[in-house]
Amino acid sequence: MSDTASREKVSALDLDLRRRAAAVIPSGMYGHMNASRLPPAHPQFYERTEGTRAWDVDGHEYVDFMCSFGPMILGYRHPRVEAAAAAQRAKGDTQPGPAPAMVELAELLVGRVAHAEWTMFAKNGTDATTIALMVARAETGRNTVLAAKGAYHGSAPWATIKMDGVAPEERANLRYYEYNDAASVERAIEEAGAGNVAAIITSPFEHDAGFDQEIADPAFARRLRELCDELGAALVIDEVRAGFRLHHGGSWEPLGVEPDLSAWSKAIANGYPLAAVLGRGRYADAASRIFVTGSFWYQAVPMAAAVATIEALRDEEAVTVMERIGNRLRVELDQLAHEVGVPIRQTGPVQMPNLAFPGDVEFAKAATFSAAMLNRGVIVHPRHNWFLSAAHSDDDVDRFLDAAQNGLEAVLACP
Amino acid sequence: MSDTASREKVSALDLDLRRRAAAVIPSGMYGHMNASRLPPAHPQFYERTEGTRAWDVDGHEYVDFMCSFGPMILGYRHPRVEAAAAAQRAKGDTQPGPAPAMVELAELLVGRVAHAEWTMFAKNGTDATTIALMVARAETGRNTVLAAKGAYHGSAPWATIKMDGVAPEERANLRYYEYNDAASVERAIEEAGAGNVAAIITSPFEHDAGFDQEIADPAFARRLRELCDELGAALVIDEVRAGFRLHHGGSWEPLGVEPDLSAWSKAIANGYPLAAVLGRGRYADAASRIFVTGSFWYQAVPMAAAVATIEALRDEEAVTVMERIGNRLRVELDQLAHEVGVPIRQTGPVQMPNLAFPGDVEFAKAATFSAAMLNRGVIVHPRHNWFLSAAHSDDDVDRFLDAAQNGLEAVLACP
Repeated sequence: MSDTASREKVSALDLDLRRRAAAVIPSGMYGHMNASRLPPAHPQFYERTEGTRAWDVDGHEYVDFMCSFGPMILGYRHPRVEAAAAAQRAKGDTQPGPAPAMVELAELLVGRVAHAEWTMFAKNGTDATTIALMVARAETGRNTVLAAKGAYHGSAPWATIKMDGVAPEERANLRYYEYNDAASVERAIEEAGAGNVAAIITSPFEHDAGFDQEIADPAFARRLRELCDELGAALVIDEVRAGFRLHHGGSWEPLGVEPDLSAWSKAIANGYPLAAVLGRGRYADAASRIFVTGSFWYQAVPMAAAVATIEALRDEEAVTVMERIGNRLRVELDQLAHEVGVPIRQTGPVQMPNLAFPGDVEFAKAATFSAAMLNRGVIVHPRHNWFLSAAHSDDDVDRFLDAAQNGLEAVLACP
Repeated sequence: MSDTASREKVSALDLDLRRRAAAVIPSGMYGHMNASRLPPAHPQFYERTEGTRAWDVDGHEYVDFMCSFGPMILGYRHPRVEAAAAAQRAKGDTQPGPAPAMVELAELLVGRVAHAEWTMFAKNGTDATTIALMVARAETGRNTVLAAKGAYHGSAPWATIKMDGVAPEERANLRYYEYNDAASVERAIEEAGAGNVAAIITSPFEHDAGFDQEIADPAFARRLRELCDELGAALVIDEVRAGFRLHHGGSWEPLGVEPDLSAWSKAIANGYPLAAVLGRGRYADAASRIFVTGSFWYQAVPMAAAVATIEALRDEEAVTVMERIGNRLRVELDQLAHEVGVPIRQTGPVQMPNLAFPGDVEFAKAATFSAAMLNRGVIVHPRHNWFLSAAHSDDDVDRFLDAAQNGLEAVLACP
C-alpha cells in the first residue's frame, strides 16, 4: 500500500450527506461545485473555513488553493471585511432601498478602475456579463456579439457550456473568434457584418477550464480596442474570474487598453454575493434605459464587505503578495516535478495557477494528482485553474509542495 | 398649508446621497428600487431596519408595508433567522463546497411543498424562472413557452419589461395568453403548435404592477394542468413574489393543482439572497443535465437562514397572521375611504394588498396617497402591490389607518 493510500481519509459523514442529497437534489449536486465529477477523495460538503484553511464535514483540514473558485481573495473570514459586514448587518441588509454603502462602493470602484465612470450592481457574474451585453445592445442598436470560442462567460442560456435546455435562438446573436488571434476576430466581423456588431466580449487572459491558459498578447488587446472603435461597438472585458487578482484596477490597464464595459463578481467582496458592471460615460445613458433588477441586488452587507475588501486589497498589497507566492509555487513545483521525473506544464498568471500533464488527455494524471493532494490536506482542482489569495503564506506553499511531492509520485506510478 | 405639507420631512442626507449616486450610477439608480420614479417624499437610501420598522438616512422612522418588495416575511432581523445565520456564519459562508445546511434545506422544501421531489438553489428569482424553463426544454426537447401577457417573471432579456438591450431572438420562443382565460391559452397553443410547447408559466395570482390583481380562477388553474398533461409540457408556477405568503406549501395546493416545476425566491430566507427551483421527480433527469451555476449559489448562510425562516413561518402560523392583519387592513381601509368619500378598489390576496383609485390612469391619486403616507411614516408603493409580514401587528395597522386618513384626504383634495 502506497503512502498516499495509507493516509486516505475516512469520509463517513460526507458520504451520508451525499446519499441524502441524491434524494432531494438532481444527481446529488449541480454546477461547478459538483464533486461527483472529481476523484472520490474530494469532499462534497464543508463544515468550516478560516484564513486559507477549510475543514470538510468529517473534520479533515485542508489548505485551500481553490479559494471557492475565486471569491476568497483575502482569506476566509478576513477580520476587516467581517467587521465591515457586521457593522452594516447591525443596521440592515435587504431593506426598502439601498444603504449609503452602495454609493460609497460605486465611488470606490469608479476611482479604482480606470475606464469606469459608473457602476451597477447585481448578484451573479452571469448577471454582470448579461447586463454588459444588454447595455452594448441598447447603446448600439445592434445585436451581434463576438466571443472567444470556448470562453466561459456564465451559465445563462446564451453563455452556458451545455446545450441541454437551451433554445438555439438564445445563442443566435453570437459569433466566435479565437483568443489572441486578431485575424479570426476580423473574419468573425466580416461574417457577422460590421454594421451588426454590438460588442466584442473577451477575458483578461484565456482561462478556459481543461486547457492551457494563455496570457493576452498586448497587440491582440490593442487590436480589439481598435476594431471596436472602428465598428462603434463596445469592448467588454469579463473580469469575473480574474478581477483584482492581476491588478488593483482593470486587468488590462498595465497593457494600456481600456474596455467600454467590464463585468465583475467573485472576489470583489471576499465571498459575499455581489456582481458589478462598470462602464464608460458614453454608455451611461444606455445603462439607464435597460430594465434589470433583482430582489437582493440592493443588499447592503455585501456592498459594505466589498468596500472593505477593495480597501484591504490595496492596503495589503494583495496583488504583489499573490504574485510573490505564486512565483514561488510555480518555480518550486517545476523543480519538484523535474526531480521526481514527471513532465508538467504550468500556464497563465502565477496567482491563478494552472497545471497540466502533457498527453493527459483524459485528465487521468490530473485526477491522480488532485486526489493525492487532497489526501495530503491540499485542495486543488484537476481541470480548472486554481486561485491564490493574499492570505496564502510561505507555510501554505510548503504544505503545497510537501503534498505535491506525493502527488507527483502518484502520477509517476500511473499506468 | 395642509396638515400633510406641514409634516413634510427634511431629507438633506438623502438628497446628498442622490447627488453623489447620480455621478457614479446611471441616472442615479436602476431597477425596482429606483426612487426617482416615485413621489419625492419617498427616500432613496435607508439607514436601518428592525421588525416592521425602517429608518431613512435622515432618521425618519417608517412602518414598512413593502417588506423590501417581499423578502421580509417575518420582520427585519428576526431573532430566530439571525441566530441561525450567525451560527452558520461562525463556521463559514462561501466555501470550497456547500455546507450540510444545503441538504437540510432541500429536504425541508421537498417536505413542505407538495409537488416538490427535488430542489436546486440559485440567487435571483430570475435565475429560478430561467432554470425552470431550461429544465422544461431539456425534458421535452421543445422550445416554446406560454406566459401570461404582462406578467413579470424576471429581468433577464427573455423576461424583462423593457425592450432596450434585448435582441428579438431572445424572446422568439414566447407566446402569450390572458391570465384566467383558458380559451386564450388554447389559442396560444394552436398558434405555437401543440408539439412545440415546452412549458406554460404562470403566477399563483395575477399580480402585474399597475393593474388590479386577480385571484386565480380554480377552473383556469385546473385547465392549465390538463392542457400541460395533454401536451406533455411542464406547468411552471412562478412563486417568486407570492411564495409562502398564501400557503405554507405551494400556492395552488389549496386548489388541488400541482405544477411540475416552481420557481422561488424573495421571502424564502427572510431577506438573505436565495432562490430555488422545485420539481417533480420526472423532471430530475433533465435538471441534472442542464449546466447552471453561480459563484455564490452554494453560500451556506442564506441556506441556514432559509431553514430557520421556513420553520418559523409554520411555528408562527405566518399565513394565518398575515391573513388576519390583511383582512383588518382591507376592511377598515374600505370603511375609511367610504367615510372620507374617496372611491377605492382593493384587489388580490389581503396579505399582498393592492390599492387603486378608479379612473386614476396616470397614478396621480396613487402618488398623492403614497406621498402622504410617507410623510405620516408609512411606506407603501403607488403602483406595486404591498406586502405584509408575520411581524405586522394591530398597532402597525392602526398607524397605517391613521396615515391613510391623511392620505385619503390628500387624494380628495387632488385636482
